[in-house]
Amino acid sequence: EHIPFSSPRYPENEMIKRSQEFYELLNQRRSVRFISNEPVPRQVIDNVIKTAGTAPSGAHTEPWSFVVVQDEEVKHRIRMIVEEEEEVNYKKRMGDKWVNDLKKLKTNWIKEYLDTAPFLILIFKKVYGITSSGRRKTHYYNEISVSIACGFLLAALQNAGLVTVTTTPLNCGPRLRTLLDRPDNEKLLMLLPVGYPSKDSTVPDLKRKPLEEIMVEKIRSFSHPEAYCFFLSLEQHSKTHFDWIVSFSSASNQKSISSPVTECLCML
Amino acid sequence: EHIPFSSPRYPENEMIKRSQEFYELLNQRRSVRFISNEPVPRQVIDNVIKTAGTAPSGAHTEPWSFVVVQDEEVKHRIRMIVEEEEEVNYKKRMGDKWVNDLKKLKTNWIKEYLDTAPFLILIFKKVYGITSSGRRKTHYYNEISVSIACGFLLAALQNAGLVTVTTTPLNCGPRLRTLLDRPDNEKLLMLLPVGYPSKDSTVPDLKRKPLEEIMVEKIRSFSHPEAYCFFLSLEQHSKTHFDWIVSFSSASNQKSISSPVTECLCML
Ligand SMILES: Cc1cc2nc3c(=O)[nH]c(=O)nc-3n(C[C@H](O)[C@H](O)[C@H](O)COP(=O)(O)O)c2cc1C
Ligand SMILES: Cc1cc2nc3c(=O)[nH]c(=O)nc-3n(C[C@H](O)[C@H](O)[C@H](O)COP(=O)(O)O)c2cc1C
Repeated sequence: EHIPFSSPRYPENEMIKRSQEFYELLNQRRSVRFISNEPVPRQVIDNVIKTAGTAPSGAHTEPWSFVVVQDEEVKHRIRMIVEEEEEVNYKKRMGDKWVNDLKKLKTNWIKEYLDTAPFLILIFKKVYGITSSGRRKTHYYNEISVSIACGFLLAALQNAGLVTVTTTPLNCGPRLRTLLDRPDNEKLLMLLPVGYPSKDSTVPDLKRKPLEEIMVEKIRSFSHPEAYCFFLSLEQHSKTHFDWIVSFSSASNQKSISSPVTECLCML
Repeated sequence: EHIPFSSPRYPENEMIKRSQEFYELLNQRRSVRFISNEPVPRQVIDNVIKTAGTAPSGAHTEPWSFVVVQDEEVKHRIRMIVEEEEEVNYKKRMGDKWVNDLKKLKTNWIKEYLDTAPFLILIFKKVYGITSSGRRKTHYYNEISVSIACGFLLAALQNAGLVTVTTTPLNCGPRLRTLLDRPDNEKLLMLLPVGYPSKDSTVPDLKRKPLEEIMVEKIRSFSHPEAYCFFLSLEQHSKTHFDWIVSFSSASNQKSISSPVTECLCML
């Protein structure tokens, strides 16, 4: 039951342009913690969840459920549960180090957006499935698969001009699962309040790592068969040359590079 | 250090159109295991990795590294490692049940695409960070964050007209980490071969779950303050009415719905 596959193909310059524009679109995404109560078209919510449902999943298990909450009363109950647990998290469970790491984000346990956002989307992972004969079916890599689907959902929201903040409500899973009547095999993974940013919303002034800090190129040296080259990719548009960083490594003498620029031979 | 936030805003009909088109684009994505050796523009690879780097991450730790492999020799060494481990996985480690679950995908341990794909992208999660003073820094939710970033990367590849297959090479992590000289705090999460589909490529004839199987709506009943309604969202465009499924639940008498359609009161 394999079928032929074909996919859209663009000329090279169009591929480059599309990939650049998509980067610019998603690079505008920020976690927004001030969400206005303006209504959002329902069809957009359906479409972003449909988009999430196109994600790959281990052995095609599709181990996800998206619970959509629009009702004021249910939203408020969720807020009560989350704030109650988060207050304990901040004051007791997380420890000074974690609370300190979060200081720059200025987050705390008050989550007004849980009342104001027109939609809450609660993403559950199905940690196991149930076969027609009632037996448990393993869901390989369910958390990874659902997180990828969440990535699709976040990209779809950004594309539609909506905002959210990705949250993982610590210790709220069991109470929210009960409130929302989800079955035993489902565990809460993420809670996303969805809407438009409120008029005067602000975000922490964070910077993202540049490409050369997150990408590493692994190539074999051309001149020396036993050597491996590391190529720190600098943005090709802005640079006319590359910095080559070479680490000579052989089966018997493998060296890893801890501080590449200072320790290595630079050519060019 | 909070700064004002603003984001693009589209008229409602444009939001709906954009969300529909994005769904259609991503819905064409398939895991493709036959990849041609045609070269792919390098800038597109840079752009899709930059896009992945815009993902949210727990406490803004950005706990990811993307290793790009283009070199024939390195690709082949990766193939040798993966095929060696995968053969043992299929024959011994996975167990009959798992191998059986994979039958419909017709996958096995031969991975020709690891030689033919012009690029391999190996995604590592940084399970902890290292501060400037050399101490370990916890990376909260690193696997979830990196998987979301992988979702961004897959969406970006699809948008550019490229294909891949999301793979999690079981038990290959340590050997690939050594081959690629990644530091101790990095663990391999995903391996993506990237390129164009080969001419006669096929995919398993899988169906995706429809919206009503992955989305659940949780609303309070209007008529009865203690009742909660479950609303199985049927695609609104194709249906002129909704099926309401009501579960009466109160603090003292909580009922969960196992087989909603048969057990519940349906209102029109
Ligand atoms: C976390 C994860 C791990 C996967 N591992 C493998 C793998 O090791 N080998 C493989 O061929 N496919 C793997 N897949 C691909 C799935 O089999 C594929 O996504 C699923 O069958 C659905 O098909 P589609 O991606 O074409 O929609 C994986 C997918 C995910 C999300
Ligand atoms: C897995 C995960 C969990 C997160 N948990 C929370 C959370 O509980 N509360 C919150 O305010 N933000 C949370 N965030 C958002 C991050 O703080 C945010 O993504 C990060 O600071 C980067 O900012 P940006 O999303 O604007 O790029 C989480 C993000 C991820 C990916």
